[in-house]
Amino acid sequence: MDQVNFVNGKTRVYGIVGDPIEQVRSPEMVTWEMQKRHHNAVLIPMHIARDEFDSVMPDIMRMQNLDGLIFTIPFKSQAIALAKTLGPQASQIGAINALKKHNNGEWSGEIFDGMGCVEAFIRRGIPIQDKRLQLIGLGGAGSAICVALAHQKPSLMRLYDINSQTTARMVGMITTISPHTLVEVGAPHADGIDILFNASPVGMLSDSRLPLAVETLKKGLVVFDAIVMPENTPLLTLAVNCGCEVVRGREMMLGQISKIVDYFFAP
Amino acid sequence: MDQVNFVNGKTRVYGIVGDPIEQVRSPEMVTWEMQKRHHNAVLIPMHIARDEFDSVMPDIMRMQNLDGLIFTIPFKSQAIALAKTLGPQASQIGAINALKKHNNGEWSGEIFDGMGCVEAFIRRGIPIQDKRLQLIGLGGAGSAICVALAHQKPSLMRLYDINSQTTARMVGMITTISPHTLVEVGAPHADGIDILFNASPVGMLSDSRLPLAVETLKKGLVVFDAIVMPENTPLLTLAVNCGCEVVRGREMMLGQISKIVDYFFAP
Repeated sequence: MDQVNFVNGKTRVYGIVGDPIEQVRSPEMVTWEMQKRHHNAVLIPMHIARDEFDSVMPDIMRMQNLDGLIFTIPFKSQAIALAKTLGPQASQIGAINALKKHNNGEWSGEIFDGMGCVEAFIRRGIPIQDKRLQLIGLGGAGSAICVALAHQKPSLMRLYDINSQTTARMVGMITTISPHTLVEVGAPHADGIDILFNASPVGMLSDSRLPLAVETLKKGLVVFDAIVMPENTPLLTLAVNCGCEVVRGREMMLGQISKIVDYFFAP
Repeated sequence: MDQVNFVNGKTRVYGIVGDPIEQVRSPEMVTWEMQKRHHNAVLIPMHIARDEFDSVMPDIMRMQNLDGLIFTIPFKSQAIALAKTLGPQASQIGAINALKKHNNGEWSGEIFDGMGCVEAFIRRGIPIQDKRLQLIGLGGAGSAICVALAHQKPSLMRLYDINSQTTARMVGMITTISPHTLVEVGAPHADGIDILFNASPVGMLSDSRLPLAVETLKKGLVVFDAIVMPENTPLLTLAVNCGCEVVRGREMMLGQISKIVDYFFAP
């Protein structure tokens, strides 16, 4: 038969919306996850210009067989206006990266960057509860990771970001979510820390810097880096050389994809 | 790798727009044709409600990586308003079924139902020029087939449709396109005819009727039926039993898909 087997008239459509769009990995990865679960669904790239997002998106959402959207740069904050209701982490962070259509036609949003990171740790069997964490970088992904980690009730969260306002906002957030977690703010270091999280862009692509001033890391420390490219950032390379266990950005991405597909197809 | 290989961030998106949408075959067939030609492109179903078409479509067409649309029932006439320029057959018929974005961002439309039928005959090596044709049914597909056949300059076109206004309009059209073609109007029969075209819905699905009052067909007659389901209509079954050569609706569909993909990817 002269036809493909992955799309037909009954296929439910999902999209990832961004500007630019060519670099996104969700189409191939989320479609794989949905089809692996036997859903007749595809996720396509949707390139929407920044200055047209607000006017165009409501009409795109009128496509009757469109059931969900993922948002990437620069739309995660803007997209919140498209959701009638918000999940708990989206409310706390003020941004969404997934929007889901319910059977009654209403759309709800949630942000999964942080939950994807937590999911990666769950899959590795590394507990976060009651652990002492250092988190570097509180931007879009970093603040989502911060909130998701707070929900795991660690004993200590030490924060560092170049933006002191964001840092202060996250201190308040952690205190609200997990009152018994001790919060510290200051230059990042790994002393007395169980898990070190990098969510800053330091070490991305050809950036050869480390996100904190260290020459060695103690064995037993777990090191996470949200960066996907390169797979082995300077921080992770150092961590491996020092005998630390490492959790990579790709694992967070896979965890997030799994959580988003759960969300899209939850009743 | 946990990913599919048929869609990614660079994929160009095409859609078929209809209401209802679940019955369409273009997603699997057009996507196959595009990917066979090594284009990174998919065609997805787009279910747009009838009363929202005019308001929603212009915004959907703002998706920067959307390069083309196919229109099916009930939008072929309405969609003409979305095209800045029209191909020759769309102008003559007043409907389009394909809309293509050019590099300058402008959209042009054309209708390929008729050209698909002609393409099926070309692939079979059956000439239409200088032949005597009987055409039954001048609705959406039928009028497109009528115009495309007229462009092939047959010696005779005998027309039949229950709507006499449509029939009169098609007589005028044929005279304009091919002044030397003799045009006859009246109850359909196969006497003195080389090729019999059915573009009426008679014989579709479980309809056991023939579209013309005959008991046998002469050998040497070529019989075409635009109906896709069933593959063997009562007319085609009779024709095969009488030793006639037959051309099926599926061949027209394949011919049309090929022509539409040519159009989408022409420079």
